[in-house]
Amino acid sequence: MKNRENVSGLCHFKTLEWVDDGLSLLDQRFLPEEETYFRCDSVEDVIEAIKMMVVRGAPAIGIAACYGVVLSVIKYSNQQSNVFEQSVLSDMACLETSRPTAVNLMWAVDLMRGLFKRSLDDPELKIILLSTAKKIHADDIENNQKMGEFAADIMGDCEKPFSVITHCNAGALATGGYGTALGAVRSAADRGLIDLVYADETRPWLQGARLTAWELEKDQISVCLNTDSAAAWLMANRNIKWVIVGADRIASNGDVANKIGTYNLAIVAKYHNVKVMVVAPSNTVDMNTLDGEAISIEMRGEEELKVIKGVNIAPKAVPAINPVFDVTPAALIDVIVTELGVVKRPCSDSMKQLFG
Amino acid sequence: MKNRENVSGLCHFKTLEWVDDGLSLLDQRFLPEEETYFRCDSVEDVIEAIKMMVVRGAPAIGIAACYGVVLSVIKYSNQQSNVFEQSVLSDMACLETSRPTAVNLMWAVDLMRGLFKRSLDDPELKIILLSTAKKIHADDIENNQKMGEFAADIMGDCEKPFSVITHCNAGALATGGYGTALGAVRSAADRGLIDLVYADETRPWLQGARLTAWELEKDQISVCLNTDSAAAWLMANRNIKWVIVGADRIASNGDVANKIGTYNLAIVAKYHNVKVMVVAPSNTVDMNTLDGEAISIEMRGEEELKVIKGVNIAPKAVPAINPVFDVTPAALIDVIVTELGVVKRPCSDSMKQLFG
Repeated sequence: MKNRENVSGLCHFKTLEWVDDGLSLLDQRFLPEEETYFRCDSVEDVIEAIKMMVVRGAPAIGIAACYGVVLSVIKYSNQQSNVFEQSVLSDMACLETSRPTAVNLMWAVDLMRGLFKRSLDDPELKIILLSTAKKIHADDIENNQKMGEFAADIMGDCEKPFSVITHCNAGALATGGYGTALGAVRSAADRGLIDLVYADETRPWLQGARLTAWELEKDQISVCLNTDSAAAWLMANRNIKWVIVGADRIASNGDVANKIGTYNLAIVAKYHNVKVMVVAPSNTVDMNTLDGEAISIEMRGEEELKVIKGVNIAPKAVPAINPVFDVTPAALIDVIVTELGVVKRPCSDSMKQLFG
Repeated sequence: MKNRENVSGLCHFKTLEWVDDGLSLLDQRFLPEEETYFRCDSVEDVIEAIKMMVVRGAPAIGIAACYGVVLSVIKYSNQQSNVFEQSVLSDMACLETSRPTAVNLMWAVDLMRGLFKRSLDDPELKIILLSTAKKIHADDIENNQKMGEFAADIMGDCEKPFSVITHCNAGALATGGYGTALGAVRSAADRGLIDLVYADETRPWLQGARLTAWELEKDQISVCLNTDSAAAWLMANRNIKWVIVGADRIASNGDVANKIGTYNLAIVAKYHNVKVMVVAPSNTVDMNTLDGEAISIEMRGEEELKVIKGVNIAPKAVPAINPVFDVTPAALIDVIVTELGVVKRPCSDSMKQLFG
């Protein structure tokens, strides 16, 4: 990590940025080949950006939607009050349904809706909403940084330097600008704990190859790509101490739903005595979900496996099964890190102590 | 497996076939999109076919080389005897080095060389060599069928029907025409034991997606493709009883070198109480190799990971690590099947009893 400048808390790119009454989004459809920005001057642009996966990752989508609400308010500001109110509320509904599964999206729009209704008669309405959107954005980064420090404290116990494996992209590209799993990597790298990050390419969508590799290289953190199935060989032959991943949902007993392949990786880690860390904001924890069995796994189309960037890689007649997430049992997880604190050896009791 | 015709011992395609004094090869470079055949009318054609991976898989390459020797003999048959001998021996040397690591290739050419030297003065030389090449080809199929029966006997203990996972392509496409791991699948399918084969896509080369899916579908065996990292999810959620794989080299203690990802799969299988079967001809067993640590793992170029069919999927500046094989410890393997018999719970003692 010698060549990394001291950029604690800052990335060398901006996933989302509010500029001149518009939202600038790093267009993730074209990474890693092109670093282009998608300019949103209207709420319609934001909705399109979310639907087309210009921006992805639950926290990043939620923040984009908040800025989208501001753009809607600007658009209708010259309308009569009842038209204004109805139009903005209608745009909020569109934003909320622009992606089906991102819980943060609903949470963020809900928060903006309440504020909008309470402040309808305030002449400073736009300023109030914009400052709230910016606050949600800033809080996301701050919370990620907190998690990063917690994570680095835990990893500080290790003999230095060591390597880690990450899966998918739980990075600045998926959040306000620091990352959950990759936020932990950033904080640990800043302390000189990590010498190399192995990035699982993460089939079928290749978030590791396309996004994590790009993000870490851009941020001057040493990264090396590997096939998902090389993890066991890496653990047996390289100095890997931690697996660090994000989460899509965490049950009350500490079971973790995350990108398909996380469960594989955790089993292989346990076999090699490599520790497993899950890094996620506290709103990922769902204490109403008893355990992993209660989490339904989204199945997606087989084309995601059989076609890569328009190129067929399998016989058309052969079916493919494409579960997008899997559930890692709490027993395979050493620690869950949130902005509220950490849960070591997660189970129903230890989870209740922090999130009870 | 209801829709499968009774094709015991026969595949619906021919990986290699001697026709009209020439070798016809199913061109594996264009699978699964096109089923075309590469005609070798000269030894040079055979060498090119091996180098360009028209034909792949150690046993298949060895058989192709035997037919190549026959083509060399035909080519120089009108030459004076010393020119004839030198030219054919020179072609044999070229055949032998057409791929660096295939042990069967050297074994096969060696066998043909000895026969050639002993039969130089025999007017039936070409017929002797051709019948030997055909015998080696037929023996390979017969041995694979024997292994298939042994394997099906073992799996017959399972409650029926069940599913299996295979990795890479250890099929008819890699052998004389029946397959090792997929030979076991064929024999078990013929007995109605297996209802579905899950094929790991097998990154980075995608042998599973490209070849195994094609081969099984062609042969009317129900197959479903999955990403390599979905194996744990499949074992937790589907009726999978066996992992069936081939081997590139087996050490004297039963450690198995095979395609990268086999080790991952075996660890995940053990965690789920799914059994692991390795199917390979006895010449894959190397009793002079003490254990897996003594097997050096070939590392290949990063482009194999970063480029798929000419399409970049990762940042150019980011390195990738690409071990082509890994070693699965004997302790994770339930049974090794060869044409000489089976070794249950492989270890130094049990291996010595069969291969001593």
